[in-house]
Amino acid sequence: MIRPRTPSGVLELLPREQIAFQRMLDVIRRNYERFGFLPIETPVFELSEVLLTKSGGETERQVYFVQSTGTLEKQEEGLPEMALHFDLTVPLARYVAEHEHSLSFPFRRYQMQRVYRGERAQRGRFREFHQCDIDVIGKDTLSIRYDAEVLAVIHAVFAEMGIGDFRIQLNNRKLMRGFFESLDVTDSEQQSAVLREVDKLDKRGGDAVRETLAGPGFGLATDTVQKILDFVAVRSSDHADALARLDALDGLRGATETFRQGLAELREVLALVRALGVPDSHYCLNLSIARGLDYYTGTVYETILTDHPQIGSICSGGRYENLASHYTRSKLPGVGISIGLSRLYWQLREAGLVSGADESSVQAMVALMGDEHLADALDIARRLRSGGINTEVQMEPRKLARQFQYASRAGIRFVVLAAEDELARGVVTVKDLSREQQYEVVREELADTLQVELEQARALAGR
Amino acid sequence: MIRPRTPSGVLELLPREQIAFQRMLDVIRRNYERFGFLPIETPVFELSEVLLTKSGGETERQVYFVQSTGTLEKQEEGLPEMALHFDLTVPLARYVAEHEHSLSFPFRRYQMQRVYRGERAQRGRFREFHQCDIDVIGKDTLSIRYDAEVLAVIHAVFAEMGIGDFRIQLNNRKLMRGFFESLDVTDSEQQSAVLREVDKLDKRGGDAVRETLAGPGFGLATDTVQKILDFVAVRSSDHADALARLDALDGLRGATETFRQGLAELREVLALVRALGVPDSHYCLNLSIARGLDYYTGTVYETILTDHPQIGSICSGGRYENLASHYTRSKLPGVGISIGLSRLYWQLREAGLVSGADESSVQAMVALMGDEHLADALDIARRLRSGGINTEVQMEPRKLARQFQYASRAGIRFVVLAAEDELARGVVTVKDLSREQQYEVVREELADTLQVELEQARALAGR
Repeated sequence: MIRPRTPSGVLELLPREQIAFQRMLDVIRRNYERFGFLPIETPVFELSEVLLTKSGGETERQVYFVQSTGTLEKQEEGLPEMALHFDLTVPLARYVAEHEHSLSFPFRRYQMQRVYRGERAQRGRFREFHQCDIDVIGKDTLSIRYDAEVLAVIHAVFAEMGIGDFRIQLNNRKLMRGFFESLDVTDSEQQSAVLREVDKLDKRGGDAVRETLAGPGFGLATDTVQKILDFVAVRSSDHADALARLDALDGLRGATETFRQGLAELREVLALVRALGVPDSHYCLNLSIARGLDYYTGTVYETILTDHPQIGSICSGGRYENLASHYTRSKLPGVGISIGLSRLYWQLREAGLVSGADESSVQAMVALMGDEHLADALDIARRLRSGGINTEVQMEPRKLARQFQYASRAGIRFVVLAAEDELARGVVTVKDLSREQQYEVVREELADTLQVELEQARALAGR
Repeated sequence: MIRPRTPSGVLELLPREQIAFQRMLDVIRRNYERFGFLPIETPVFELSEVLLTKSGGETERQVYFVQSTGTLEKQEEGLPEMALHFDLTVPLARYVAEHEHSLSFPFRRYQMQRVYRGERAQRGRFREFHQCDIDVIGKDTLSIRYDAEVLAVIHAVFAEMGIGDFRIQLNNRKLMRGFFESLDVTDSEQQSAVLREVDKLDKRGGDAVRETLAGPGFGLATDTVQKILDFVAVRSSDHADALARLDALDGLRGATETFRQGLAELREVLALVRALGVPDSHYCLNLSIARGLDYYTGTVYETILTDHPQIGSICSGGRYENLASHYTRSKLPGVGISIGLSRLYWQLREAGLVSGADESSVQAMVALMGDEHLADALDIARRLRSGGINTEVQMEPRKLARQFQYASRAGIRFVVLAAEDELARGVVTVKDLSREQQYEVVREELADTLQVELEQARALAGR
């Protein structure tokens, strides 16, 4: 006998949790499609040679290699031929380069798949997790307008998901880089090091960080340090305030062309975000956001749950210069974001904000009072299903109390009863467990009646 | 520069193909849920010790093992710790055994995930493919009634999928086993060998198979061979014929208890299938179906596209005695089926029956005639999206002909135009590319109008 268990570092859910998780996936997908993004999926394994283009990447990322039984026995030299993808960006780059001539640009794509990282086993660290990405890829150029569209998609997703108030925080790497240049901090390594220190502000406090930056390791002048801390402290409260804060940066002494570009891009994104109908309260400037210094080159986003900032960013991304330089000479600039749904779901569950779905995907259960009623029960279920209602039948008679208990535990809203008396009168009894009501319906009208009830519930829930 | 390519043996699709594939997945999932099946997902990798419980299984199945960079360097003894699942049945067994006390039985579950097999590269052989499974698992016992329900689910799936006429073929392993017993062919190895020969009937012809079975390898008497060939040739034409053919078997000389059980089970399944509303033309008896001799113990199913029998079974499964004997002492009988969607999609595409989706998931495109109209274009798109219509905006003005060409190639049905003149009059122009019509709509009524059009198209398509 083998003890049944999963490897550590995976998120395996019970059915009601899976329903809640699936609903979140559905919300994400529906909104990605709403904005015209097209689905793609890529194989979970890629050729190691293709996947691991960046030297040293494999050890940093703790890649999982894949070998079939046959290959294991051969014990070949070097790395195994295939590896599991560790994100959806490298596969996207490979896909776009491979299928370049079959795609239309700008190419809006969404991709929702599991990815794999050889993390150390640790609470909340997953070795397998769902990522839900969108990217817009241009050929040669890509208008800054897409940076605003992507923000509008993030807004639409979390507005519908209903996990609480949220704020999309916006910055621009050109603004940041230009700002550092104006301070004569031009080395990108040094910029990164400074930003890493700045990231510790919450943990270490302003004074400690100030001391480090002015200390021997960095050797920055005191007023330079102060300017940096003032800059990264900028947060806007609303749209007008965001514009005012950008205006205040117009006069920056020693501002470079890069800085001015960053300002102009942020202004355009803000204007379009408003035109796209994203409410003021859902976005703001946060000039401390960097998202790793090498990859992103313009707009960067992070998304925070207002009441749960400790969860960190639930959706991040930004603009990059060139997607697929390892695979093609075509220049493919892009902008995109990623939602790490496994981690998000897990953290929401830890915070007590989601658990299992309140209501099952099963909407109705036809109870069975005796074997002689089976054919009627099956017929009633068939009509409900034809009417678009997810319905299960109790295939064997049990005590009615047990059948109700089962439906209640399972989160099934409607229990349908049809015994001798009802069948003779051409009606059925409906028990609505969510509203604790009971009523009779003409058998032929059952599906229509429940449809109306479910439609009302959906309308109330704003779905 | 690295040549961008996937490993062999995977099915990677272009966006319009992916949309068609996704629609098939949606049909399957919708119908699984319609019958009250609950979703679960399991990690793509399992502990090797847990996954490979059957001795010799790993080499037969050509399992893929998974190792992170760190583990590779250590070069541990023995098999790697983890392996990719090669089907969804072993993970289901592990899941049910692990979570037994959190589940309600009978447990109806569906699971749609990719699985992995280290196949040799060969056309139509996939190393990664989608499986879409349902199973009903009982605790200690499971009524034969579920065998009929599972058949009704198969019917609902393929009736909605619209890939042509199909027939679910039904047999029962008890009937088969009992029949062999009546002929004194009691050794299960020998039964398997005979069935393998019988499987070659189409290829080798009746005479050759007859000769083999009567020859030295098998040594069966001539009349025994004839009885076997007569038995496996049974196919019913309709419901009444199916019952008549079972009646004809009632008088079988030497019929055992097992045989009689098989007859009774088939009769009950047929009666309930009819009560479930499955039309006569969609199911039949086929007494040659065995589906591997060891695993299934009662009802077995195969599903054939009537006009494309060469594709083979597109959905198969059956009843088994005990799901998880390796992991728990609980007896967990079950019945289930599996749709191998990657293979099915690939074969339909090879046969010219599906290609990309005719219509994109993007339903409307807002054209852009000049930068000065961008804010209006974004506003029109926002309203369409609020009305539930998947809409993309041309973010940069291009020649109108190119915008139409783009929409047409992408399979987008509606192109919405709003230039100076229209905006002044508070209207927009809609070009319906599928109906080659053009009309004006009041701007505020656009979403409602297109909703009605889309609803009509759905109704016409029977969706």
